[in-house]
Amino acid sequence: MSFLIDGLQYSNWSEGIFRQLRAGGVDAVHVTLVYHETFRETVTQVERWNRWFERWPDLIFQGFTADDIATARATGRTAIFFGSQNPSCIEDDIGLVEVLHRLGLRFMQLTYNNQSLLATGCYEAEDTGLTRMGREVVTEMNRVGMVVDMSHSAEKSTLAAIEHSSRPIAVTHANPARWHQARRNKSDAVIGALAETGGMLGFSLYPHHLKGGSACTVEDFCTMIARTAERFGTDFLGIGTDLCQDHPDSVVEWMRTGRWTKRIDYGEGSKDAPGFPPMPSWFKDNRNFGAIAAGLRAVGLSADEVGAIMGGNWARFFASSFGPARPARGRNAAE
Amino acid sequence: MSFLIDGLQYSNWSEGIFRQLRAGGVDAVHVTLVYHETFRETVTQVERWNRWFERWPDLIFQGFTADDIATARATGRTAIFFGSQNPSCIEDDIGLVEVLHRLGLRFMQLTYNNQSLLATGCYEAEDTGLTRMGREVVTEMNRVGMVVDMSHSAEKSTLAAIEHSSRPIAVTHANPARWHQARRNKSDAVIGALAETGGMLGFSLYPHHLKGGSACTVEDFCTMIARTAERFGTDFLGIGTDLCQDHPDSVVEWMRTGRWTKRIDYGEGSKDAPGFPPMPSWFKDNRNFGAIAAGLRAVGLSADEVGAIMGGNWARFFASSFGPARPARGRNAAE
Repeated sequence: MSFLIDGLQYSNWSEGIFRQLRAGGVDAVHVTLVYHETFRETVTQVERWNRWFERWPDLIFQGFTADDIATARATGRTAIFFGSQNPSCIEDDIGLVEVLHRLGLRFMQLTYNNQSLLATGCYEAEDTGLTRMGREVVTEMNRVGMVVDMSHSAEKSTLAAIEHSSRPIAVTHANPARWHQARRNKSDAVIGALAETGGMLGFSLYPHHLKGGSACTVEDFCTMIARTAERFGTDFLGIGTDLCQDHPDSVVEWMRTGRWTKRIDYGEGSKDAPGFPPMPSWFKDNRNFGAIAAGLRAVGLSADEVGAIMGGNWARFFASSFGPARPARGRNAAE
Repeated sequence: MSFLIDGLQYSNWSEGIFRQLRAGGVDAVHVTLVYHETFRETVTQVERWNRWFERWPDLIFQGFTADDIATARATGRTAIFFGSQNPSCIEDDIGLVEVLHRLGLRFMQLTYNNQSLLATGCYEAEDTGLTRMGREVVTEMNRVGMVVDMSHSAEKSTLAAIEHSSRPIAVTHANPARWHQARRNKSDAVIGALAETGGMLGFSLYPHHLKGGSACTVEDFCTMIARTAERFGTDFLGIGTDLCQDHPDSVVEWMRTGRWTKRIDYGEGSKDAPGFPPMPSWFKDNRNFGAIAAGLRAVGLSADEVGAIMGGNWARFFASSFGPARPARGRNAAE
């Protein structure tokens, strides 16, 4: 059986969730460390994870290289790979890219909905594409082996990142806009460019990204994946559930407003529905990946295709993405 | 030929000094990153070193494990191991011990002359021994593999650290007080405790630690080492030159006063001699280790003893000190 890998989660982590990861057979997961946090606040989140790794070594450990996926499988644990959904963690300091990579950060979004120092988010009216610093930081991320994630970025910025990056990039958690029109979902132009460049698209289960929202059926979701595979191929497709489990609604408010506004910004929500939307009945937590795999088979995908989408493609992408662009002579395995 | 390792340097690093390290055949050196700097300021120093590693990969690279000493020898480079001379880099946050270890910090002094949150420095009138936080931090340093360095600590605190630490500790740069009475030099009680517990003593060439200061002869210095070996054994002895090359005197003022006083504090210096003292004529830079090795042979030490003192003992100590106390199952090589 191939690996089971989730391309993005941001839950209110607990022993209970770690045990659900094991019950669901999840070999590796890209977890969001931070959104709008500074570097120092990001390090505090690393410290929280270090305490969890120390406390539950039989359930989880930190992943640094793709080899850790096989280690996780072999030892019956889940490898946790860090990511940031916004570049605020590097502040205005390109040197923090290598420092955070050393600490295990393997994904960084160039933007989270708003304009950043690097690029434009999907909620802005004007899209700058990559800024001067954005081009420098993408080059540095390419050098050290940190994946450019454009899930929350605007169209022109996303295409510019794909064009400028010397290594394939990822949209870890979004769906095709042609299936469900939403600011966070991606155009055929972006999806096609990801497919052509060896990038990755992780299909999201966050209800605001689903046709029909929380009521979306597993059949609709899996049919959408099958249509995307028919149109663009299967090799660049994965799952990025965007599972945000057990959080109070105050957390989604932080995600949306950080410190950039004093007003409420509802983002994908609304005044009538300001909180986290309920997840689809068929995907409540990490024990439910089987429903997706079964659904993909039911809509006609082969066992090999399903294995690739459920984790095989992410495993291959991790292996080519997390190391230095040109291994320096004599560098040790920590590199 | 055994390894050549220096247990402490803090120079105004440059390509010229890196080339002197190579000309002198130095396989590894413990370099001071910071004195009174905060965590964020410490990370900025890591960033400076990262730029040097990227710019001069044929001369230097960062050392993380003792295996990097052999890699340095095999590739004709010098492995750079980081350390801090004060615990201000962890602020009041024990979680920063593991974070800084991940970034490569392999030595941390519990104090630098003054009282710290952890213990007492050698210039204080009262010596608390290890504080409550000090005991916790030593235990955490033992867990992750960060060496407790008591070079600038007071007697009771140093003996308490040796007693509390579950792993051998180091005095990376100091000499026996019975040879030259100085606040920074160590009593027979401390030296004996280091010898008994598998710790390390690095002999210092900083003139204030030398009998006769800058005029100290290589014969006097090597005779002192031979007498120490006769009294306590040879296995725990190394060199820690405390070489502070090419710095303006403003740097020694920062080392002495940091942000803790608005007055001038001359430390080991004086109003008449406030700056860096001139190094002995026979040890000006990294090309001069041969003079020490020859001097040790001249006072009667065997070739094996000289090899051990010039680097063999440090290499063995690095190998037993830099990894986790109990390797966690399935952790990767970065651990």
